[in-house]
Amino acid sequence: MLTVASALEKLLATVLPFGLSEIALEDSLGLVLGKDICCPDDIPPFDKSLMDGYAVRSNDVTSGVSSLRVIETITAGRVPTRKVGVGEAAQIMTGAPIPEGADVVVKIEETSREGDQVLIKTVSPQAGTNVILRGTSVRAGDCVLSAGLVLNGARIGTLAEMGYAVVPTRRRPKVAVLATGDELVPIEERPGPAQIRNSNASMLAAQIESAGGVPVRLGIARDERDELRRKIHEGLTSDILVLSGGVSAGTLDLVPSTLAEMGVSEVFHKVEMKPGKPIWFGIRDRSDQSDHGNCSVCYVFGLPGNPVSSLVCCELFVRAAIRRLMGVEPAIVPPNLAKLEHDYSTRTDRPTYHPARLTWEAGSLAVTLVPWHGSSNLCGTAAANGMAYLSGEARQYRVGDELETYGW
Amino acid sequence: MLTVASALEKLLATVLPFGLSEIALEDSLGLVLGKDICCPDDIPPFDKSLMDGYAVRSNDVTSGVSSLRVIETITAGRVPTRKVGVGEAAQIMTGAPIPEGADVVVKIEETSREGDQVLIKTVSPQAGTNVILRGTSVRAGDCVLSAGLVLNGARIGTLAEMGYAVVPTRRRPKVAVLATGDELVPIEERPGPAQIRNSNASMLAAQIESAGGVPVRLGIARDERDELRRKIHEGLTSDILVLSGGVSAGTLDLVPSTLAEMGVSEVFHKVEMKPGKPIWFGIRDRSDQSDHGNCSVCYVFGLPGNPVSSLVCCELFVRAAIRRLMGVEPAIVPPNLAKLEHDYSTRTDRPTYHPARLTWEAGSLAVTLVPWHGSSNLCGTAAANGMAYLSGEARQYRVGDELETYGW
Repeated sequence: MLTVASALEKLLATVLPFGLSEIALEDSLGLVLGKDICCPDDIPPFDKSLMDGYAVRSNDVTSGVSSLRVIETITAGRVPTRKVGVGEAAQIMTGAPIPEGADVVVKIEETSREGDQVLIKTVSPQAGTNVILRGTSVRAGDCVLSAGLVLNGARIGTLAEMGYAVVPTRRRPKVAVLATGDELVPIEERPGPAQIRNSNASMLAAQIESAGGVPVRLGIARDERDELRRKIHEGLTSDILVLSGGVSAGTLDLVPSTLAEMGVSEVFHKVEMKPGKPIWFGIRDRSDQSDHGNCSVCYVFGLPGNPVSSLVCCELFVRAAIRRLMGVEPAIVPPNLAKLEHDYSTRTDRPTYHPARLTWEAGSLAVTLVPWHGSSNLCGTAAANGMAYLSGEARQYRVGDELETYGW
Repeated sequence: MLTVASALEKLLATVLPFGLSEIALEDSLGLVLGKDICCPDDIPPFDKSLMDGYAVRSNDVTSGVSSLRVIETITAGRVPTRKVGVGEAAQIMTGAPIPEGADVVVKIEETSREGDQVLIKTVSPQAGTNVILRGTSVRAGDCVLSAGLVLNGARIGTLAEMGYAVVPTRRRPKVAVLATGDELVPIEERPGPAQIRNSNASMLAAQIESAGGVPVRLGIARDERDELRRKIHEGLTSDILVLSGGVSAGTLDLVPSTLAEMGVSEVFHKVEMKPGKPIWFGIRDRSDQSDHGNCSVCYVFGLPGNPVSSLVCCELFVRAAIRRLMGVEPAIVPPNLAKLEHDYSTRTDRPTYHPARLTWEAGSLAVTLVPWHGSSNLCGTAAANGMAYLSGEARQYRVGDELETYGW
C-alpha cells in the first residue's frame, strides 16, 4: 500500500499552482505574493520631518539660545512656499516636507515661541537631525518584497505605500464539500433510528476555511447513483471536490465508480495510515483544456466516512492541495517536533495520526495524546488542537521523546 | 509614562467581553465557545458496525469455517428488520445498526459468499469485534466541550454531531479604520509633492482581520475638525474605532480634542514604548446604556501616524481588545521565547518592539532582527514575520540569548 509520503508526492505531481491573477490588496491577507515587487519611487518621496518643531539652518543655531524669525508653517501635505534664509525658521509638522535652506528640525519641546520669533534651546543640533532624506527607506527600483512571501499586515501596508492597489498572487481555491450516505441527516434535524447527523460536512468546511480555501457546501448525497452523479457534477465546477463516505468496500460504496464514469481519473486509492486508509484521490480529466487555471480542472478527494478519518485526511491531503494551488511553500505542512508529556505504549499496525493537545512551555512545544477510541470517535478529538505521528509498530514511548506534530 | 504592561492592564479593565449570542455553526471557526456543551444523546446513538461484513452470533462461529444463511442486507441508514437467529447472518455496511441477536461483525475480507450462504473464515471472533456499542464515545449528559475553547474543525464537527446548528459564542467585533492627515492620498492615486499614500488603513485592516475582527474601512479624514467629526461619528457605530495620525504634539493633531468633544473619555495617552509612544486609548461614554453588548459602546484607539508605530500598537493593543471582546484567553497575546541568531547591541532609551524574522528550527523558535530604520520605515518590516522585545536600556545581546517574540 502507498505510504503517506508517496501519496503526498503523487499529489504534488498532480496538483499544480494556479496561474497568477491581480487580486485587490484588501482581499490579499494570507495569500502568497506571486512576483518580486520593486518600488517604483523613492520612499520617502521627499525629505521630510520626523518631528513637530522648527526647520532651521544648522549653521544658524550656535551654542546656547538662538532667536529666529518664523516665515511660515508647513503642515503635512503642504508644499513649502519659501526658502529658509539666514536667521529664519519654518514651523513644521511630522511628515511635512523640509523647506529649501533648512537642514535640521528642532523638536517643539526644545523651543519657545514669541510672536514671529522662535527661541531655539537646543545646543548645536547636527545637520540631518529629525530629518529623513528622500529614498532613505527604499530607492526607486529596489526590490522590497520577494515572490513566495505570505501577505501579512506589514507587507500589505508596504504594498499600499508603493501604490499596489492590486497584487499579483494566486486566488483561494473553491472547495466543494459533499457528504454521502443514506444514514445522514442535516445537523438541525433529529436523526431517526439508524441515522446520524452529517457532522463531516461542517467539520470539513471549517478545516478547508482554516487551510485558506473557500468552502462550497453541497449538502448530502444519498447512496443512489443518479443523485450522486448530479451532486458530483455540481462539485466538479469547484477547484477541489471533497466527498466523505462511500469509498470503502461496501456494496453501496459508489463513489469511485461514479467518479470514473464522470471523467475523474484515479491518482491513488488507499494509503497506509490510521485513520483514513480508504482515501481516494483523482483529477478531473483536462485533455480538452489548455488553461490550467480553468475551472473545469478539478481535484477530487474521496475521504472515508468515519469522522476522524475524514478529519485527518483533510489535514494531511486536502490542506496540502489547497496550499499547493495557492503557492504556499512548502505545500506539505512540515511537522513541528514536540516533547511527549507522558509515557505511551502503542500497538498499532499502521502509521497513526493520534489526536493530541499541543502546548507551549518555555519556548518549546509539548504534546499530550488525548484519550481516543478510533476513527468514529470524533468527540475524543474535542480536547485536541492537533495530532501526533506514531510510527506503525508496537513501541513504548517515554516522557520527553520527540514526536512529529501538526497543529489544527 | 505608562508602561506597556500598565496600559494593557487599563485596557483589560475597560474592555469587557461581549455577551453571548447564538451564532450559526458554519460561521463559528475561530470563535470561542461561551458555555460548556453537554451531549444530549448517546454517541453513537445505536450499536453500529465499524466494518463492511457480516453480523453474526459469536457462539455460532466456532473454529474453522462456518456456513451461515444470510437473512438480509443492512445498509447504513436502514433499520434491521429481522433478528439474527442461530445459524444466520446479516450482511452489514459500515455505520449500519447491529441487528438483534448478532454480537460481532466479521469483515467482508474474511468471508466468502455463495448464494444465500456466507462462509466465515475467521477463527473464533470475540463478541464485540468490529462493533461499537451505543454510548461508547459519549453518554447522554456528558460534557464534551468546555467554555473557552477556540472552535476548530474537530470541535465544529463534534458540535454538528450533537446537533448544535447554532453555538453560544461571542461575535467578531466590527473595527472601523480611519486614517487622518492632509498629506494622505488613496493608494490607487499618485501622490503629489508633499503627499504620501494612505498605507496605514490597508495595513491596519489586514491586522484587524488576522486578529479576528471585521474591518470597516472609513477612508481618509482631512486635518479639519468638521470632516474629522463626521467620520468619527460614523466610526463610533462600530465596536472599535482605530484612527491613525493626529495624536502627537502638532498644531493639527486634532484627534484627542475632537474625541473628547464627542463623548469619548480618555483611558490613557502615551505609553513608554518604541515605536508607538503617542498612542491614545479611550471609551465612548456609555452612561446611558445598560446592555454592554450594545453597539453604542465603542472603544477608540488613536494610533501614531508613522506606519511602524501604527503596526506595533495594533499588534499589542488593538489585537488584545479584539481578543478580549471575543472572549479569547488570554486576551493579551503571550510572547514566545526565541533564541537570538546573532549578536546585537542596542542603545534604545525605551522598551522597543523590533521587527524580526521568526523561524522554527528542530522544534524551537529562532529569531533574527531585520534591518530597520525606525517608525517611518515600513518597508523594513517586509522581511519580518513578527517582532522581538528589547528592554529599554543599552545592552549587548549575544547569539543564543532568549528574546520575547510575537508572530504577526
